[in-house]
Amino acid sequence: MINVYALSTPNSVRVPFALEELGVDNVLNAINLRKDEQKHADYLAMNPNGKVPVIVDPDGDKLFTLTESGGDPRLFRRKTGRLVPADAFGRARVIEQMFFHLSGVGPAPGQLGFFKRQATEQIFYAIARFQTEAERVLKVLDGTLSRSAFAAGDAFTIADIALFGWLWRREFAGNDFEGTPNIARWYETVAARLAVARAIKRVTALVRPA
Amino acid sequence: MINVYALSTPNSVRVPFALEELGVDNVLNAINLRKDEQKHADYLAMNPNGKVPVIVDPDGDKLFTLTESGGDPRLFRRKTGRLVPADAFGRARVIEQMFFHLSGVGPAPGQLGFFKRQATEQIFYAIARFQTEAERVLKVLDGTLSRSAFAAGDAFTIADIALFGWLWRREFAGNDFEGTPNIARWYETVAARLAVARAIKRVTALVRPA
Repeated sequence: MINVYALSTPNSVRVPFALEELGVDNVLNAINLRKDEQKHADYLAMNPNGKVPVIVDPDGDKLFTLTESGGDPRLFRRKTGRLVPADAFGRARVIEQMFFHLSGVGPAPGQLGFFKRQATEQIFYAIARFQTEAERVLKVLDGTLSRSAFAAGDAFTIADIALFGWLWRREFAGNDFEGTPNIARWYETVAARLAVARAIKRVTALVRPA
Repeated sequence: MINVYALSTPNSVRVPFALEELGVDNVLNAINLRKDEQKHADYLAMNPNGKVPVIVDPDGDKLFTLTESGGDPRLFRRKTGRLVPADAFGRARVIEQMFFHLSGVGPAPGQLGFFKRQATEQIFYAIARFQTEAERVLKVLDGTLSRSAFAAGDAFTIADIALFGWLWRREFAGNDFEGTPNIARWYETVAARLAVARAIKRVTALVRPA
């Protein structure tokens, strides 16, 4: 059985989303970030980077421990043959869009949310920098989604799963879909999938804040 | 013939590095960031994200345009069968390490260098934030490299190629290898490869600052 260590974060939700899409059984284990459980010694032994999610997957009689959510679905694809195009060019486009997400769509709202909501000093320069960058990358994504139904072409792929988390948690940075109608249309389509509804229900049930 | 649009940046160098490793002929075309050439209309038509590098690869009688350097080597691997393990678990480890690079090792020194050298205001809070994060991710990487010869195991892979750029350009953020002896050892090994020497020579020749 696959074990996933996660919480209801933008990056965590990808793993149950992908597993639900693939129909791969798994157990979700809550890592309570409010209690800094991701910095406990036994967690750091699994992921020295101290981040969620982590996946632990039986590999014969050993356990294969994998960090960095983006890698996981590809592993499952190797087992189940879905969510990634078979041809090299289509596959390159999927990876391109996942990298665009990781270097663009994820970090900008992440930093923006931090400087708006969590920083102990109010630094307008930093807020403006990451606000501008967040709006810019969302415009780029909106352009991509104006040219194709999904992020990496006309089929739903793991690139859409990777992108979903930060758009689902967009209140953190205060982004909305105003001015990006293609993202709005794409989000509605993706959010309507049964797998994501199940994944969201599972991750949001992990820890109920007191 | 493959055309690459690049400059001597941390992310650009990956593409010629990978192509030199694979012995795939290509033409490098300079995009002068000092002159904002990455924001010209004809460049934005290739990459709406306005970043280097871009690769244009003949696909039959069409041209396949790919952005986001991390995706490219995998495309070439599909053609040439090198630099990525054949088994699913080994492949997942490579992707994990590339995602760790893209979400950790790249952004922290990028933001640190910006706030130290390019921001129009000197903001100690932001410098301290990204300094701490840069040092943290380098420690995590050092731990990884204490357990295996290369980033994703005992073989040299595209994860090492992806990681190389920001460590090569570490003066931008002012990071060094003090306190990370495993990164220092790894860097020396990777930097000694003929392919990277050729790639660095080619990208640094692209634009000679006046």
